[in-house]
Amino acid sequence: MTDIMRGLAFLGDGQVGLTERKVPKAGPGEAVVRTTASLICTSDVHTVAGLLPVPSGRLLGHESVGIVHELGEGVTSVRVGDRVAVNAVTPDGTCDDCQRGHSSQCGGPLGGYRYTAQKDGNLAEYFHVNDADFNLAPIPDELGDEMAVYACDMLSTGFIGAENAAIPIGGTVALFAQGAVGLSATMGARLLGAGLIIAVEGRADRAALARKFGADVVVDPTDGKAAEQIVELTGGGADAAIEALGSQATFEGCIRCVRPGGTISNLGYHGDSGPTLTIPLDAFGLGMAEKRITTALCPGGRERMTRLMRLLATGKVDPTPMTTHRFGIADAEDAFALMASKRDGVIKPLITY
Amino acid sequence: MTDIMRGLAFLGDGQVGLTERKVPKAGPGEAVVRTTASLICTSDVHTVAGLLPVPSGRLLGHESVGIVHELGEGVTSVRVGDRVAVNAVTPDGTCDDCQRGHSSQCGGPLGGYRYTAQKDGNLAEYFHVNDADFNLAPIPDELGDEMAVYACDMLSTGFIGAENAAIPIGGTVALFAQGAVGLSATMGARLLGAGLIIAVEGRADRAALARKFGADVVVDPTDGKAAEQIVELTGGGADAAIEALGSQATFEGCIRCVRPGGTISNLGYHGDSGPTLTIPLDAFGLGMAEKRITTALCPGGRERMTRLMRLLATGKVDPTPMTTHRFGIADAEDAFALMASKRDGVIKPLITY
Amino acid sequence: MTDIMRGLAFLGDGQVGLTERKVPKAGPGEAVVRTTASLICTSDVHTVAGLLPVPSGRLLGHESVGIVHELGEGVTSVRVGDRVAVNAVTPDGTCDDCQRGHSSQCGGPLGGYRYTAQKDGNLAEYFHVNDADFNLAPIPDELGDEMAVYACDMLSTGFIGAENAAIPIGGTVALFAQGAVGLSATMGARLLGAGLIIAVEGRADRAALARKFGADVVVDPTDGKAAEQIVELTGGGADAAIEALGSQATFEGCIRCVRPGGTISNLGYHGDSGPTLTIPLDAFGLGMAEKRITTALCPGGRERMTRLMRLLATGKVDPTPMTTHRFGIADAEDAFALMASKRDGVIKPLITY
Amino acid sequence: MTDIMRGLAFLGDGQVGLTERKVPKAGPGEAVVRTTASLICTSDVHTVAGLLPVPSGRLLGHESVGIVHELGEGVTSVRVGDRVAVNAVTPDGTCDDCQRGHSSQCGGPLGGYRYTAQKDGNLAEYFHVNDADFNLAPIPDELGDEMAVYACDMLSTGFIGAENAAIPIGGTVALFAQGAVGLSATMGARLLGAGLIIAVEGRADRAALARKFGADVVVDPTDGKAAEQIVELTGGGADAAIEALGSQATFEGCIRCVRPGGTISNLGYHGDSGPTLTIPLDAFGLGMAEKRITTALCPGGRERMTRLMRLLATGKVDPTPMTTHRFGIADAEDAFALMASKRDGVIKPLITY
Repeated sequence: MTDIMRGLAFLGDGQVGLTERKVPKAGPGEAVVRTTASLICTSDVHTVAGLLPVPSGRLLGHESVGIVHELGEGVTSVRVGDRVAVNAVTPDGTCDDCQRGHSSQCGGPLGGYRYTAQKDGNLAEYFHVNDADFNLAPIPDELGDEMAVYACDMLSTGFIGAENAAIPIGGTVALFAQGAVGLSATMGARLLGAGLIIAVEGRADRAALARKFGADVVVDPTDGKAAEQIVELTGGGADAAIEALGSQATFEGCIRCVRPGGTISNLGYHGDSGPTLTIPLDAFGLGMAEKRITTALCPGGRERMTRLMRLLATGKVDPTPMTTHRFGIADAEDAFALMASKRDGVIKPLITY
Repeated sequence: MTDIMRGLAFLGDGQVGLTERKVPKAGPGEAVVRTTASLICTSDVHTVAGLLPVPSGRLLGHESVGIVHELGEGVTSVRVGDRVAVNAVTPDGTCDDCQRGHSSQCGGPLGGYRYTAQKDGNLAEYFHVNDADFNLAPIPDELGDEMAVYACDMLSTGFIGAENAAIPIGGTVALFAQGAVGLSATMGARLLGAGLIIAVEGRADRAALARKFGADVVVDPTDGKAAEQIVELTGGGADAAIEALGSQATFEGCIRCVRPGGTISNLGYHGDSGPTLTIPLDAFGLGMAEKRITTALCPGGRERMTRLMRLLATGKVDPTPMTTHRFGIADAEDAFALMASKRDGVIKPLITY
Repeated sequence: MTDIMRGLAFLGDGQVGLTERKVPKAGPGEAVVRTTASLICTSDVHTVAGLLPVPSGRLLGHESVGIVHELGEGVTSVRVGDRVAVNAVTPDGTCDDCQRGHSSQCGGPLGGYRYTAQKDGNLAEYFHVNDADFNLAPIPDELGDEMAVYACDMLSTGFIGAENAAIPIGGTVALFAQGAVGLSATMGARLLGAGLIIAVEGRADRAALARKFGADVVVDPTDGKAAEQIVELTGGGADAAIEALGSQATFEGCIRCVRPGGTISNLGYHGDSGPTLTIPLDAFGLGMAEKRITTALCPGGRERMTRLMRLLATGKVDPTPMTTHRFGIADAEDAFALMASKRDGVIKPLITY
Repeated sequence: MTDIMRGLAFLGDGQVGLTERKVPKAGPGEAVVRTTASLICTSDVHTVAGLLPVPSGRLLGHESVGIVHELGEGVTSVRVGDRVAVNAVTPDGTCDDCQRGHSSQCGGPLGGYRYTAQKDGNLAEYFHVNDADFNLAPIPDELGDEMAVYACDMLSTGFIGAENAAIPIGGTVALFAQGAVGLSATMGARLLGAGLIIAVEGRADRAALARKFGADVVVDPTDGKAAEQIVELTGGGADAAIEALGSQATFEGCIRCVRPGGTISNLGYHGDSGPTLTIPLDAFGLGMAEKRITTALCPGGRERMTRLMRLLATGKVDPTPMTTHRFGIADAEDAFALMASKRDGVIKPLITY
């Protein structure tokens, strides 16, 4: 067996390219996985655009599943050959932030997000896993890789958005933007008992997917009156709103459309929103309307991955309609170009190996 | 218009009978509703059997919807002629228990449960509503009475069982007994994001309904090994268990089948369990396995009713397959006899007027 | 007995004056209280400065206790002659917002705040109480009026700031500004198990009071480095921060000084912060550091008032060191002028009758 | 340096004895601590009495602090020579139970409790620590060992009892039994904002300590009417009750003394209560009074230990009045005999080295 593998790398100045490098090795407590399926993420596009500063040559990708290839000393929860999913975020389970229950902030702000940000990503034929017993989640036999790979980021991120939204059973929720994260949050809102799910989305194809995934109503934000419409549809404001784009306009829409006492659950990455986000004080009750703002970063760890894959395995959700395009790893550059262009109704390009 | 109405009354010694009495009047802050649909509840059977001591002549029933017939002074939230649903529990919203968030315990233990227990029930052509602005919930136009009447008790009780169970998203839950409350709790578990729903039920017809409402697996308790099977199916114990019968055996099954840290959510009325319930200490980790036991009584109030009916109106749940039989009020005695006998696969007999 | 009373009124254009008007009357479910003690609030100063638009002639004040003078029809929880405290916020307990647990937003944003905002305030010899059974809280015999009056706003507001901060037991908390609300929040943080309490305050007299009420450290914000100092003192950021001023600088300081996963609990009224509040995205982890922002408005209701007064009666807290000055009602104009001037180390001027 | 150490061992048949054995070694990720202070626990007495089955020769003890003596490969959070405290419970931070937030149940029911139960305890001159980065908590310089050692079990257990009790700010709580755990729970209730703290204790010396640690009232349970008295003192039942003995009588007292909607927080080890615990259904509202029962096992981990020691370092609590007796390790047998006898007002015997 060769020890050379291919992966999609950031090459500086907005460029990507398929490159070769050595298959990683597993130190104590670590693992190496042979990849079988990956998804490209908008975050990869952000990174290449320079929103996340990483050195040229760094491999991209953080949504991958595969087969255990090598286990370091002391790893006991899986065996070589097991099919496993690994979350985009790989905490150590030990630091103070992990012990506090904020494992995505492992070791510091956003610290659990290691792929691409701190080490090579996993849009590659093999990938490295730190703290393997904490992070390797066996994929149930009945679950295909192309379904399981959605647990790595989309479902975990989308669902934490709905969990943080604290929607009361039968309550109302508005979801701003229906890209892959927003659509996943719509699935999450449906899964967590929302009574009226209002998606805010201007593209017809995404609006159709939103309805498929559980939206009762889709509001077009083009005229700038989405928040007003939501207040009217809900008779005074939604119980919760989920921001799934990462822009000032959608963030503000969330604040404006929730009722007093409502929750704004932010999922969007605001790397492109300038240095600040702005809260409109009229809609915020001058700081006294009991509105709450929560934020999140994709929660990882085997235990959560197990629950997410259980939902897939028992048919509670099916995110695969988001797989709009498929590529082999040899064509990963084309896949990335498609994702970056947002052409052809792309939601998630799937890479196989 | 006559001021005489018919209703089904407890007549002492296990007897019921259709009786006549005066239509109630609405005092300040109160309302009278002309009934359009009612459901008979197992609690009515319990009451007639003597488990809840009430005077002979007391009208039965606490699951009814209808049309506002009369409004007392100061009621502003609805108008005469509006279609409304009223929860089985009608808190005042004002007492300390209500202010603490335990409105079902309004004024004392189980104090919000007024129909039949404290005054005439609403299995009658007209019924009285205390604290009308707190308790009258307008029925959405698109929602039929025979659907809406499920919000009065079944959905509110079943769903609070699932809410109290604190099932993590994608987690596992076991539901002991699949009568109308258990089936409603199954709907609730499905609605609140459970990943694996295990119903415990020995009757084939109820098992089939359980699957229809969201159960992934149905375990037959006949051999006394339900808890063991659940521990095996869940790889070490369910995240939560819901007791929906009111017996020592099912209560104990719940404690035995949950993992350390799991929640036992009791819904059953233990009026027939003798003076005590017993916790097996081995399964309870000698009091140190971080297992929690929660209890509930159908939460009422307009705001919750609005959310429950929203779930019906937007098609998130449909409990009407539980309506196994239908009667006019003139045949309410027959309906009650059927419910008491548990014959003919009865789940919920619907009464129309 | 005369039916004319004196009260301190807003007279337009930043003016106040002692005026006469008729003693209010109690309609059904309402009460009138003869005032025995009041506190002047910074909110009164804000109102007179035009931050809260009210008609000229409106009586000021919302922190008063007294003796039940008249009870409207249907009020059963107290008797004429009882000593009672009434919160600054007087919800009806019935509207959807109340039923949702957001009673300060009764009927709409900030809707539970009725005194001065919607009707005459209670810096007057008599005052009106809506929904009396919900809002009249008997004062324990062992508790003096001048102590009890702190429950009406200061303790309820300060404590909800600490409650919303979700400080883990032994955790760290920073409190920005130590006026009366901030000092009360410091008491609240002490009361709720904070391990390290850091107050941010530049005035020496208030810093001393902060220490008296539980602050372990006081940081001077004058050099603009308070947040940095807090991050250093806590080894990476506080678990929670409480904003108790209502300014962009303190709000931003809160966001900067909490660790990933930390909570920012806003208490300040941002009527003077311009049209927006601004979140610095670097300190907010670009929306992904799991920081949460909560807001509040003084929670009212008898049940909470009973708990707050219990803390006073059993000596758990003593806010009376905040009573820096005392006046009779005849001198209320002087008291207001003092409060507005912030002269002479004033924290709370007490008015007696 | 010798590699032989002394420790107090269980010798079978209710016997203990000071024995010699090899100083333990630190494998990868592990540590060995040289002990400086230990406390004897009632659990040690239970173990020797046979309630926890362990092999003869097993060292006792789980409340110890000391100095890092040896670190295994990969441990990075501390250095040899650092003063550290280690909780009685030492989770791995990695298993599913830990990831679920139930780290005391690490790997199975009560699985995080390793000292004595699964390996040698730490009432010895040296002790072994698994998962050292998760479990070693540096002791602040300003904190003495004899104070810090209380964080290992007493404060963590007592405080989780108060945390689980969910006492509303200013609420009422009853604590059944005031041994070391109950006294610590009293401190916890005081620390978490209880308004009225009622201790149930018949011994005068313990009652005095309870008052010192925050009890407002002490009720003598001798006449069997403690629950009734608490209901009367609280005007209808306490918000919460904490069981700190491990007996049917105190457990039942807790259920009887809380109001509808109240919480029963169990801390006691019911190894001596027979095979079952019994819930009186009248006081439990036949399963419908919204009473909740929670259970706990001393939560461990560095992060919690850091918070507990912060409370000691900043003077928020001082548990050292519970140190009623002091012994050198050479006299550990006498210390144990004293603890077992409950003579001489013993609460906690401190062992020094």
